Amino acid sequence: MIMINEIAKNIEKHLKALREFTSTCGNGVTRFPFTKEAKMAVQYLEDEMKKIGLKTRIDESGAIIGRLEGKEKRTIIIGSHYDSVKYGGEFDGIAGIVCGLEVARLLKEKDFSSKYSVEIIGTNDEEGARFKSGFFSSKAMLGQLKVSDLEAFKDSDNISIYDAMKDYGLNPDRIYEAKRNLEDIKAFLEIHIEQGPVLEKHGKDIGIVDTIVGMQRYMVNIQGRADHAGTTPMDMRIDAVEVAAKVISNIGDIARTYKNAVATVGSINVFPNEINTIAQNVSFSIDIRSTKQEAVNSIYQKIKEWIENITSKYNSKYSITSTLSINPVDMNEGLKDKIEKSCIERKFLYEHINSGAGHDSLPMAEAVDTAMIFVPSKAGRSHSKEEFTSYEHLAKAALVALDAIVNI
Amino acid sequence: MIMINEIAKNIEKHLKALREFTSTCGNGVTRFPFTKEAKMAVQYLEDEMKKIGLKTRIDESGAIIGRLEGKEKRTIIIGSHYDSVKYGGEFDGIAGIVCGLEVARLLKEKDFSSKYSVEIIGTNDEEGARFKSGFFSSKAMLGQLKVSDLEAFKDSDNISIYDAMKDYGLNPDRIYEAKRNLEDIKAFLEIHIEQGPVLEKHGKDIGIVDTIVGMQRYMVNIQGRADHAGTTPMDMRIDAVEVAAKVISNIGDIARTYKNAVATVGSINVFPNEINTIAQNVSFSIDIRSTKQEAVNSIYQKIKEWIENITSKYNSKYSITSTLSINPVDMNEGLKDKIEKSCIERKFLYEHINSGAGHDSLPMAEAVDTAMIFVPSKAGRSHSKEEFTSYEHLAKAALVALDAIVNI
Repeated sequence: MIMINEIAKNIEKHLKALREFTSTCGNGVTRFPFTKEAKMAVQYLEDEMKKIGLKTRIDESGAIIGRLEGKEKRTIIIGSHYDSVKYGGEFDGIAGIVCGLEVARLLKEKDFSSKYSVEIIGTNDEEGARFKSGFFSSKAMLGQLKVSDLEAFKDSDNISIYDAMKDYGLNPDRIYEAKRNLEDIKAFLEIHIEQGPVLEKHGKDIGIVDTIVGMQRYMVNIQGRADHAGTTPMDMRIDAVEVAAKVISNIGDIARTYKNAVATVGSINVFPNEINTIAQNVSFSIDIRSTKQEAVNSIYQKIKEWIENITSKYNSKYSITSTLSINPVDMNEGLKDKIEKSCIERKFLYEHINSGAGHDSLPMAEAVDTAMIFVPSKAGRSHSKEEFTSYEHLAKAALVALDAIVNI
Repeated sequence: MIMINEIAKNIEKHLKALREFTSTCGNGVTRFPFTKEAKMAVQYLEDEMKKIGLKTRIDESGAIIGRLEGKEKRTIIIGSHYDSVKYGGEFDGIAGIVCGLEVARLLKEKDFSSKYSVEIIGTNDEEGARFKSGFFSSKAMLGQLKVSDLEAFKDSDNISIYDAMKDYGLNPDRIYEAKRNLEDIKAFLEIHIEQGPVLEKHGKDIGIVDTIVGMQRYMVNIQGRADHAGTTPMDMRIDAVEVAAKVISNIGDIARTYKNAVATVGSINVFPNEINTIAQNVSFSIDIRSTKQEAVNSIYQKIKEWIENITSKYNSKYSITSTLSINPVDMNEGLKDKIEKSCIERKFLYEHINSGAGHDSLPMAEAVDTAMIFVPSKAGRSHSKEEFTSYEHLAKAALVALDAIVNI
């Protein structure tokens, strides 16, 4: 318990320092990629890594990496993301990096040792909140990003990832240099808050993730015609808001006919968005997730048919752009066993669980042995300033990760 | 025809100069109240009024007034607004002021004379695009504005009318000084583009307005709960976007069951508006209009019942704020007759028409003798950069207004 208290205290100190790096002070944490808040968080993490004695570098994606050289060049990575959604919480992502800092500190200071080199990585733009993309650093590490991708994704001010990176001081033309030699990665471990209500409800300390849901994201654009809201009779208008509302109103109901699936429209933008003017354009996001790939595909097909149906009825046009498509992935059995063994030995209460949220572990698991350790979220709340996870639970997760690293 | 050409040329020159005062260059005219674009337009109008020989002043609402003293103190006003919607056209409102400039010029230069004093007034914030209010100067002239109203209406940056006025150089605490002595107003005339397709379709030069529709505007707020879009099962979420979409999707259909009525949702704002986050809040506008007051009331009641129905089904909460409520009003018969007589004598093609749009004439007609002269809109397009009205049609409207003034 003494060690748990010490770890929990450090985690609390780090998280309380890091929550100050937000652009929405007093309204949760907003830490978008390639902003001054991101830079300050990275600087804090780098300083702490150096204090512990890690060799640090920032890769071409903006990820902060602290390395502890082991007997083997092959590396176990503990990673999670430092970016946040808009008005998000102070634990999502960053808590996993902070737990990693404690794992590294314990490996340096205490009687633990790993055969492998260990890296703590704070990844960038996992959420995709700014550019409607996501998994940026993990995709970069996997060599999945092209320069043209960086130009294609733009934020609400029409700034591309490419330009944002340049402005931030990174060289987007060298993004390929973030690619890792996958044979050198022994394992990828991610500690993350659950962001759902299950672990707390069941009174658990730790969740061992079996499967991360697959997800597809789309941007839909509905085209109407801008006319005066008072002088254009109801039967002479093409109202993009009306058409979009009829589309969106059915999306949740389509998802409800599937088990373990969700579909969400979280973002709507109307142009010109005036009381007085029939909308010319409405664009909105769709996010579909399930542990079953077939369910995600089938929900998308039904939504698409519905959009075709409604837009043709109202003489409107539409376009759909796929912005993300990831299959569900299972976590590595061997790593899960080591995590479970640690929980049993340390008498931590645990259970197996699926992840409804995407994480850097989702793309990583396609390429390297990957496992996720979940920590309970208070009332399941996340992506809001109400998000909370106890520092003791996070400390337990750090110890479990440490045990796994020592035993790999 | 020579005089029509001369007037049309002047109108074209003024309108092409004034369209430059926009904050959305290349994307229509955006001239919001109390902005530098508004100030530049007012300055232009004041300069032109002075050139003609009018005595100018700017009232406490920001209206620009040019006065031509007559034998009688009592005054005929030709007025319309200089503000615009976002991405609006270069004719809506401002064309009526420019026609007024030509009327004043002809009264000064040519062989026309009026028994009454004449004022050309460019009113401010008729559209309500910035503060979701509207009819600002006309309400001020009628003494209908209180200082507390100025504090209540706020723009999307949370700046109140009160603060915007101060920043602009007006004294909001003296808004009551804009009030006119209504007995001194002999008539209010407004020249305005039709903003609908009827006059063009029927090949007319001039529309004589019989009735201006009544309208009610509301802001609706739907309250959900912000949760993670991936980890919150469909049956555990309160999704403000889903609820709002189900509400909005039925609003047009409710209006379609009434004759000569329209209902429009032109503006939707989602909070936090993230792909990844179930929406916590959606606010949207409703604009309901009809020539029949009972129809407006009844449509609002049905929409309200529908909102209650849907929000209670989805465990959501809502609030509705009324932002505008104006009864339909008939134009003055005597003034209409004078306008009609001028059209007949000048052989201008005309017809009687209702106005589906609100205008400064709407509140004015409640208090003083008021008439509106409509000019055809190309393809009925308005509130968009496609808005166009021929300068010749505007010149004809100016002549008709001039005749009416001479004959009052």
